[in-house]
Amino acid sequence: MTVPHSAPAELLQSRRSPLLVFSGQSNRPLAQAICDNLGIPLGKSKTEKFTNDNIIVHYEESLREGDVFIVQSFSTPVSDAIMELMLMIDAAKSASAGRVTAVIPYYSYARSDKKDSPRISIAGRLVADLLQEAGADRILTMTLHAPQVHGFFKVPVDHLSADVVLSQHFKKCVPNAHEGVVLAPDAGSIKRASQIARRLDSGLAMIDKERLSDTEVRPRALIGDVDGKTVFIVDDEISTAGSLVETVSIARSMGAREVYVAVTHGVYTGPAIERIAALDVTQVASANTVLVSDEKVAGANGKLAVLDVAPLFASAIRNIHTGGSVSTLFT
Amino acid sequence: MTVPHSAPAELLQSRRSPLLVFSGQSNRPLAQAICDNLGIPLGKSKTEKFTNDNIIVHYEESLREGDVFIVQSFSTPVSDAIMELMLMIDAAKSASAGRVTAVIPYYSYARSDKKDSPRISIAGRLVADLLQEAGADRILTMTLHAPQVHGFFKVPVDHLSADVVLSQHFKKCVPNAHEGVVLAPDAGSIKRASQIARRLDSGLAMIDKERLSDTEVRPRALIGDVDGKTVFIVDDEISTAGSLVETVSIARSMGAREVYVAVTHGVYTGPAIERIAALDVTQVASANTVLVSDEKVAGANGKLAVLDVAPLFASAIRNIHTGGSVSTLFT
Amino acid sequence: MTVPHSAPAELLQSRRSPLLVFSGQSNRPLAQAICDNLGIPLGKSKTEKFTNDNIIVHYEESLREGDVFIVQSFSTPVSDAIMELMLMIDAAKSASAGRVTAVIPYYSYARSDKKDSPRISIAGRLVADLLQEAGADRILTMTLHAPQVHGFFKVPVDHLSADVVLSQHFKKCVPNAHEGVVLAPDAGSIKRASQIARRLDSGLAMIDKERLSDTEVRPRALIGDVDGKTVFIVDDEISTAGSLVETVSIARSMGAREVYVAVTHGVYTGPAIERIAALDVTQVASANTVLVSDEKVAGANGKLAVLDVAPLFASAIRNIHTGGSVSTLFT
Amino acid sequence: MTVPHSAPAELLQSRRSPLLVFSGQSNRPLAQAICDNLGIPLGKSKTEKFTNDNIIVHYEESLREGDVFIVQSFSTPVSDAIMELMLMIDAAKSASAGRVTAVIPYYSYARSDKKDSPRISIAGRLVADLLQEAGADRILTMTLHAPQVHGFFKVPVDHLSADVVLSQHFKKCVPNAHEGVVLAPDAGSIKRASQIARRLDSGLAMIDKERLSDTEVRPRALIGDVDGKTVFIVDDEISTAGSLVETVSIARSMGAREVYVAVTHGVYTGPAIERIAALDVTQVASANTVLVSDEKVAGANGKLAVLDVAPLFASAIRNIHTGGSVSTLFT
Amino acid sequence: MTVPHSAPAELLQSRRSPLLVFSGQSNRPLAQAICDNLGIPLGKSKTEKFTNDNIIVHYEESLREGDVFIVQSFSTPVSDAIMELMLMIDAAKSASAGRVTAVIPYYSYARSDKKDSPRISIAGRLVADLLQEAGADRILTMTLHAPQVHGFFKVPVDHLSADVVLSQHFKKCVPNAHEGVVLAPDAGSIKRASQIARRLDSGLAMIDKERLSDTEVRPRALIGDVDGKTVFIVDDEISTAGSLVETVSIARSMGAREVYVAVTHGVYTGPAIERIAALDVTQVASANTVLVSDEKVAGANGKLAVLDVAPLFASAIRNIHTGGSVSTLFT
Amino acid sequence: MTVPHSAPAELLQSRRSPLLVFSGQSNRPLAQAICDNLGIPLGKSKTEKFTNDNIIVHYEESLREGDVFIVQSFSTPVSDAIMELMLMIDAAKSASAGRVTAVIPYYSYARSDKKDSPRISIAGRLVADLLQEAGADRILTMTLHAPQVHGFFKVPVDHLSADVVLSQHFKKCVPNAHEGVVLAPDAGSIKRASQIARRLDSGLAMIDKERLSDTEVRPRALIGDVDGKTVFIVDDEISTAGSLVETVSIARSMGAREVYVAVTHGVYTGPAIERIAALDVTQVASANTVLVSDEKVAGANGKLAVLDVAPLFASAIRNIHTGGSVSTLFT
Repeated sequence: MTVPHSAPAELLQSRRSPLLVFSGQSNRPLAQAICDNLGIPLGKSKTEKFTNDNIIVHYEESLREGDVFIVQSFSTPVSDAIMELMLMIDAAKSASAGRVTAVIPYYSYARSDKKDSPRISIAGRLVADLLQEAGADRILTMTLHAPQVHGFFKVPVDHLSADVVLSQHFKKCVPNAHEGVVLAPDAGSIKRASQIARRLDSGLAMIDKERLSDTEVRPRALIGDVDGKTVFIVDDEISTAGSLVETVSIARSMGAREVYVAVTHGVYTGPAIERIAALDVTQVASANTVLVSDEKVAGANGKLAVLDVAPLFASAIRNIHTGGSVSTLFT
Repeated sequence: MTVPHSAPAELLQSRRSPLLVFSGQSNRPLAQAICDNLGIPLGKSKTEKFTNDNIIVHYEESLREGDVFIVQSFSTPVSDAIMELMLMIDAAKSASAGRVTAVIPYYSYARSDKKDSPRISIAGRLVADLLQEAGADRILTMTLHAPQVHGFFKVPVDHLSADVVLSQHFKKCVPNAHEGVVLAPDAGSIKRASQIARRLDSGLAMIDKERLSDTEVRPRALIGDVDGKTVFIVDDEISTAGSLVETVSIARSMGAREVYVAVTHGVYTGPAIERIAALDVTQVASANTVLVSDEKVAGANGKLAVLDVAPLFASAIRNIHTGGSVSTLFT
Repeated sequence: MTVPHSAPAELLQSRRSPLLVFSGQSNRPLAQAICDNLGIPLGKSKTEKFTNDNIIVHYEESLREGDVFIVQSFSTPVSDAIMELMLMIDAAKSASAGRVTAVIPYYSYARSDKKDSPRISIAGRLVADLLQEAGADRILTMTLHAPQVHGFFKVPVDHLSADVVLSQHFKKCVPNAHEGVVLAPDAGSIKRASQIARRLDSGLAMIDKERLSDTEVRPRALIGDVDGKTVFIVDDEISTAGSLVETVSIARSMGAREVYVAVTHGVYTGPAIERIAALDVTQVASANTVLVSDEKVAGANGKLAVLDVAPLFASAIRNIHTGGSVSTLFT
Repeated sequence: MTVPHSAPAELLQSRRSPLLVFSGQSNRPLAQAICDNLGIPLGKSKTEKFTNDNIIVHYEESLREGDVFIVQSFSTPVSDAIMELMLMIDAAKSASAGRVTAVIPYYSYARSDKKDSPRISIAGRLVADLLQEAGADRILTMTLHAPQVHGFFKVPVDHLSADVVLSQHFKKCVPNAHEGVVLAPDAGSIKRASQIARRLDSGLAMIDKERLSDTEVRPRALIGDVDGKTVFIVDDEISTAGSLVETVSIARSMGAREVYVAVTHGVYTGPAIERIAALDVTQVASANTVLVSDEKVAGANGKLAVLDVAPLFASAIRNIHTGGSVSTLFT
Repeated sequence: MTVPHSAPAELLQSRRSPLLVFSGQSNRPLAQAICDNLGIPLGKSKTEKFTNDNIIVHYEESLREGDVFIVQSFSTPVSDAIMELMLMIDAAKSASAGRVTAVIPYYSYARSDKKDSPRISIAGRLVADLLQEAGADRILTMTLHAPQVHGFFKVPVDHLSADVVLSQHFKKCVPNAHEGVVLAPDAGSIKRASQIARRLDSGLAMIDKERLSDTEVRPRALIGDVDGKTVFIVDDEISTAGSLVETVSIARSMGAREVYVAVTHGVYTGPAIERIAALDVTQVASANTVLVSDEKVAGANGKLAVLDVAPLFASAIRNIHTGGSVSTLFT
Repeated sequence: MTVPHSAPAELLQSRRSPLLVFSGQSNRPLAQAICDNLGIPLGKSKTEKFTNDNIIVHYEESLREGDVFIVQSFSTPVSDAIMELMLMIDAAKSASAGRVTAVIPYYSYARSDKKDSPRISIAGRLVADLLQEAGADRILTMTLHAPQVHGFFKVPVDHLSADVVLSQHFKKCVPNAHEGVVLAPDAGSIKRASQIARRLDSGLAMIDKERLSDTEVRPRALIGDVDGKTVFIVDDEISTAGSLVETVSIARSMGAREVYVAVTHGVYTGPAIERIAALDVTQVASANTVLVSDEKVAGANGKLAVLDVAPLFASAIRNIHTGGSVSTLFT
């Protein structure tokens, strides 16, 4: 007597059907682009605020037994984004969704991943617990601040990397990228920088910084050599660009020739756009995990590039839905 | 007033000591008033936002083994208030607090307490679960939208009522209050209205409303008699005052003489103050569970009164800390 | 590349198959009627008591991977009904049922939904937790005492309403029902009464009661006008009918012409049948959520009507099983 | 006997004070006897049934921070006994008891400790989970059907034995007990019989039984020798005494001289008393874990003896309260 | 309207597909034999140790949505076996396995099933909790030390018995087995002995032992009669064979003619093989739940027999996978 | 040094008393040294193995209400160390310990902190979950492989650092340490190296490595400058010293003058001691978190130094016990 070796794809897909993708308010264009890549319409839902500032979410189509993906980046206003996502997860579960995957292109609280000082919260773990308590069955995200943050979740996590996208972008911009140097702005980004350097077959350098207080950090030295070279600065995110200005300034003072910047999450808050417009770099690129408005692009003096990662997310969602391997897709 | 040295207080207090009261950003004046009533200083903590809009909370004194109370109302911006509270609870637990009580004078999501339509979240339950997941050991709150919301929590809840304060306020304003009529603006507030009516020994009436859609509600009839009488309108909260305007208008059209309004939570958003300033009532009173700014009071044309419930919260905290009975205090 | 839009119904049904409906001892006729409506046989199970009064439940057919529904009303003896249901849920889970839905037409502990006095249990929440601990994956119930009780459960709840059935019954009995008045026996039933009134397009009235102690309640006044009108008394349940006798008496003393009564749960304990037989009303109707014996019907002097809600439960079960929308069925 | 003032008792007692013992309805005389042994009054609580057969429990004194013990045997009606205990535990926790210990002298569902047939519940584990879900912090019980049932609980269990009491009783009745034989009625009681035999320094024998169906069991043989000897039959409980009648009959047919019976739990249901009155034994003794009414004692023709285990429970409660070792007390 | 009575087998199998069987390091031959019986290849996985003695497990094929079974006996080194199994379960869950069943032919910690002395762990329950925390969805095991250990698990357990295999083995060895006597080495194995005796239609006897300390046990008497008879000694496991040597010696001294031994788990540690080689018995048989090396078989002087239970495990796995009844297979 | 009698220590200590420190088998000399620093005797417990290789732990003194600390490093054999610790935690909880803190000087599985390849376990998180499931109330550990591992635990963690000890050691060895360079062997240790560099006021350098497979890693470049300088190599642990040999070789080839090595965890497995004996360095130092045998010290050719961190652990335990701040102690 034997048992079947494998079920056909059609049956596999029927286990949790239909595939439904919904979006919170933080980055609907990305959600729409993901759906376009999947060839399905974006699910209908409505988010409003009561007069007392409470959020109310309403799904406008049935979710019973569906394989539900909810796309929400943790961008400003972050607390609203998190609350809306948790309300959407909870409403989906109580509406009998078969499985709910939280798609969080930018998981901002990943930066709060350790105890830098006593009596603070490791908020990256707290938010992970809250999402699971709300009912998330799995997580799909991109470029966590540290890869260990993956372990803050008990449910399965698919953790995409923008490294390929960023590397290819550099190669397209700079044909002889292998003669350049990848520069890590601090010790925390050295691993990512090292991986990009290998993809470019280029050199590597790092700025050693010293934390003076919760908010004050001082550069101690640039480890490595950038003199006369094209410099590729890589990091996980840019918010006010204050640290970036400093990194560029140090690189320049050490003889860097041309400077390219690429990060996964282009948060661009406060004076960021103004600073970038004035910055002595050729280009600053970021993925579209966080919505970059047309005004921002326009205000950056032609220096801002946005790289589309919707195809990556669409492929991951498709493979999660059909039981395919996500790991084999992105290496 | 100071912490009582009743019976075996010294030993009781030693179980979880010291008593520590901290405050989030939503209503620090109330937290300070509670501490003044307790005769202790408000605990030192600092809340900031990173440049990517993430919240960071830092306690500036040791909490080890302490009996920690954190005061936070869920007022605008509500999502920030909830996130800040959860971060404070989590940080307190991981800093080895002995017990953490979330003091939530205004638990706004209590209004989302049932499924008015399919595929929504019962957010009052979700937020209860989140607070417990964050580490809250018990809850102290006031005038939940419905008393059943108490049951959304698994941890012990002390649920204070502002009824005594509101009734005494009416009696002080209107010596022959027993000749008046308490008017419930809708079926949901009839129980509260009935209890106030018993305290005033007055009549009772109600407006029957019909929900046409999620946002539209239409009055059908006024049940009871208000003709020629002083009318006391009571409810749990006022936000834009739109419903209040309508209630007053109906009461007037049915012959009401003088109209007094009192609610627990004076949220006063949007056009509320403007509307109250123009409203045909003698006074609108609310407890200080939500912070009412001096500008609001000034803008309301002398019609706004704020009733202090800090002594009630202080007594409850003292009794929780010393193991005294909270129930016997407030009836 | 595209993914499938929707799977055919045949596949959907195969996810958790077969559909199996079992019954506890409290209301087997209802379970049988539900199965008749579904066109399937009632599942075979056996419940006995050991000589030490312990309950033992035994399923007599395989449940592996099945979509199991267990029908049990919480009627006298209530503790046995709850224990039997929990034993059935646990046995089903450990026998590898794919999903277990507790179908509780009458969830009696919903009445214990808040803290009327200190140091009592909110038993409606406790029993919800126990059912989930025993392994219930979802709940199907009807007319909870307060809609907020829905939120006592973490698992999905489908909460049916008997309002349509009761309204249609009134309309059939009284052609010009819109000239009548729906009377709520107390503040707790005003919302339900208001909804029925809208369905009948009739008037609305309420009796204001005062709780003197845990067991003693005194009417204060009838709010609204019933003089010379047909009165429809609606409530969620009748047990000893003591409160009903009083309500009818007040309505009569205020000039009510003809009185009809309809409730969801006809518990009819103690002197209930005797009282109804002697009551000055035209008819008392209830759904068959609780089993009403032939003796009771016979003893009520022709005044007792039983309305069949088995079709409602069957439709809900079918839609839950096939992933259809329950919400769209019953409005 | 009073509460001991040993060593650092004052401080120890202050951790969770005061010591409070309450009782459910199943065996109040035992609870009272325990309190008499402890030198404290039995706590005041009230249990009633609503007219719909729902149980309501009300504590009539404050439990805040108290070390609460709730005494309840699982005797007929068992489901009510379990529901009442869970309601008492839940009410105690939500009334801020410091710790709640369920004292269950007779945990009847311990007999449902394995899967004798497929598709049944291991109810002994289920009830353990339910008690913990209701909030029990620890358990105090006596003579579980199998010692492995201890492991069904995650919370700490103190598991008392009546072996010493039963052995001493035999020795008092039969001076030369060491010449007798302890007879186990079936394989399940052989370990207990063996331990009693060692205490008496007597022989050991067993009846080998064959289970024909769920309800039918047939004796195959008596293993060992009882001819001409005094026989001591020991077991964990007697309910209808049907098995006891058979055991005695077999012993007699094999030549037993005098027969004494002693069990921990004298459940005595149905024809038990009548059977014992007619039984060819000198005496049947049981502990007072289950309440044996005066009528039963009177009806048993002078053959029923009740052994007091209240001092054992009182000592255990005292040691649990003061942090003393329970294990060293009872060996 | 009707719903489908049953889904065809093909659909049932598609719910969690494919069927995947992996093996830890403790008994790969058994896992391979199970796969051979199922007609599928053994799943590819790799277990290594880092230089700091940490275990790392790596699956070498996709598990997404698969129905995963992991075979691991708890044999020496036991702690490594348990850690490896938990790592395999965790890795399978986070690799999105649809369901994970831990197949534990020999669950050694079942022996730690009660509190023989104070301040020890009931390790059988602890390990059950750990396996579930690691993510095990169900358990398949054989001959737990006591059947109550089944109740230590909350997830479904299929508990196979080797009784049929052992009985058939005895019958094949001794044609007139019904004239023999099954001897239980102690009270703990009497139930198993009694069941085998019924299958053989033979007599029953037991050795009564006295525990002097944690490690010292002394025989008191042999209950029953073995004089001149063929004796079948049955137990759940043999480790050093110390107890077996003693049992055989007692049986011999009481006149036993020929002695056969059969146990489920042949652990054979320390001097076991040497002792068996010298033992005055005809044969010692055990199932292949624990791997018995060729060296051991060779060293036992022709007295060791190994009985294959892989077909039993294969049938159970097949039925679990297809939703068939496991209980009907093995009686 | 003895337990401090600071401020309200008597009362504080009474909450959970007495303070009890027990030790597993992995590093009893460290546990004894911690107790010596605390001025209390090491708690009495016994760990044995049954003949089937199962571990049994027995506490030989009462733990009721005690504040229990269990010291266990995860050193070879690691699986036994973890199982023993979990058994000790479980036994302590079920013996009614008031609080159990797992003191894990070397938490080896912290290295498995992310998904380096698909279908593996993040074992650092799994083991954290297992310890909490076993009953650990808090954790005290030192130098986790990455600081984010702290967030794998839900219970409070006190995470000590050996940085001060290592820095002081370097300063004592090399008076003009500020002229040297701290060398990080790979990107993962750059943060720790940077912190030591700041304490020494020295330079910083790093080796950039490339992972070729799970087991193969290749150095790409040395970033920074070591030519002619004293080099301080720091890392979290050394096991076989293979990576260390390579790091030293690269440093030498780049002109390093004198080389000092210091790590927190001296695991020293396989050829480590032999390699160190032959290594071209002045000294290799490690803390005593892992037991370094006298044989190892003797075999290392005088190059091995062991630094005592028992005083750090003792201070932390004392402060945890008395509710003092741990954070203020170690900076």
